[in-house]
Amino acid sequence: MPKILVTNDDGISSPGIKILAKTLKSIGDVYVVAPETEQSAVAHALTLHRPLKSAKTGKNAYYINGTPTDCVIIGVNKLLPSRPDIIVSGINNGGNLGDNVTYSGTVAAAIEGTLLGIPSIAVSLVTEYNNNHGPQKMTSGFNRAAECAIEIVNKIIEAGLPKDTLLNVNVPPGPEIMGTKITRQGKLVYDNGIQELADPRGKECYWIGGGEPQWKKGGDTDLDAIHNGYISVTPVHLDLTNYKALKYLKETW
Amino acid sequence: MPKILVTNDDGISSPGIKILAKTLKSIGDVYVVAPETEQSAVAHALTLHRPLKSAKTGKNAYYINGTPTDCVIIGVNKLLPSRPDIIVSGINNGGNLGDNVTYSGTVAAAIEGTLLGIPSIAVSLVTEYNNNHGPQKMTSGFNRAAECAIEIVNKIIEAGLPKDTLLNVNVPPGPEIMGTKITRQGKLVYDNGIQELADPRGKECYWIGGGEPQWKKGGDTDLDAIHNGYISVTPVHLDLTNYKALKYLKETW
Repeated sequence: MPKILVTNDDGISSPGIKILAKTLKSIGDVYVVAPETEQSAVAHALTLHRPLKSAKTGKNAYYINGTPTDCVIIGVNKLLPSRPDIIVSGINNGGNLGDNVTYSGTVAAAIEGTLLGIPSIAVSLVTEYNNNHGPQKMTSGFNRAAECAIEIVNKIIEAGLPKDTLLNVNVPPGPEIMGTKITRQGKLVYDNGIQELADPRGKECYWIGGGEPQWKKGGDTDLDAIHNGYISVTPVHLDLTNYKALKYLKETW
Repeated sequence: MPKILVTNDDGISSPGIKILAKTLKSIGDVYVVAPETEQSAVAHALTLHRPLKSAKTGKNAYYINGTPTDCVIIGVNKLLPSRPDIIVSGINNGGNLGDNVTYSGTVAAAIEGTLLGIPSIAVSLVTEYNNNHGPQKMTSGFNRAAECAIEIVNKIIEAGLPKDTLLNVNVPPGPEIMGTKITRQGKLVYDNGIQELADPRGKECYWIGGGEPQWKKGGDTDLDAIHNGYISVTPVHLDLTNYKALKYLKETW
């Protein structure tokens, strides 16, 4: 049985991680190390300015008062009895598509796993294109996403992953799934909705969010796959160098 | 005069941003929007779960109780009288080299600027390879880095930047600078030093940090340029797709 470390950014109490951990137990030894509280949009943040505490919440389950990245580092190095064979982060409540991967705590946990040399995937359930999600529908969506995670984990255990590369998996809201597509990261255009409001003492505040980003349709992107009802699997690496620009700047600067 | 938005992750009170803003005033209209407190290693974190407050601390200078990414979003959309021509993030106290760009708040501010379609650079003063930094030495290092920022800003104002691409600039500790190299992002191997300690009530804690990452020498990487005394300029983009892996997975999955 492979040893699987499960984490997320929605926190240890979120339904997505519970369903994921339960489902993965059919194929592996599952350890859960997740943030104590919700850590959405914390990106690859790492806690260096204070010590971290962990608490055991069940058999092979721990929370940490930190970020998803902290959970992977402490989980792999201190809490698990030995190095995991694979890290699965999710199931996130909401998609991690296009440029949003750079904000995502879910994807960041898989980034940290990859930096540690452990095959890692991030799994997210897209909810943005279907606002009719009661708890029932969410549960069935998480179940579909967890089944999808099993398939991908089995493939990775069997065939491995390209070096220094994680898979960013997004599952459409369903209930019908058209299949799976290997995709590239799409490009979002943000409108940065910012709400202006006053605090109880009349001081002006800004609350980021609410804007709906646009994207260019067409092509083999994650955004297009999801929009057309497919599971999207994007191979993501951590070399952010723009090689075309590198060549251009070397020639012209 | 170009309109320049200056931000950082070390916070509004840090010497690096003060020297940077003062130096850039010789070539542009400078606006400072920076975090109220130090935000090192917060990566591209975005504050969505609470409103943000800003405070004016001087002419064209504001702090925000949030992350570098928050500062760019609120600065560009709410605080500046119009869109800036360029965003300069720094001068960070410490390098942002190799895979560390994924943790960096300094680089994240430039990522956010790039997502907003504004030419952006991150400037960091490497201190890791020279531990003899008193305040005097740091000031002269920041001054050198600020002069370097002026040169690069002038080049960008004149020639522009490749699309969807920021420049991650690292300045060696000096005092001698060998020149400037256009580089790719190097690869670090982390050892994840984690200190175990007990809190005042005897509860076990983990404190991440202290490990010194290693890297493979040779090649045109940022790490090598700095190690050899050169300023490193890396063109960074936000498409994290591993295209080689994309092709491979499409053929084999």
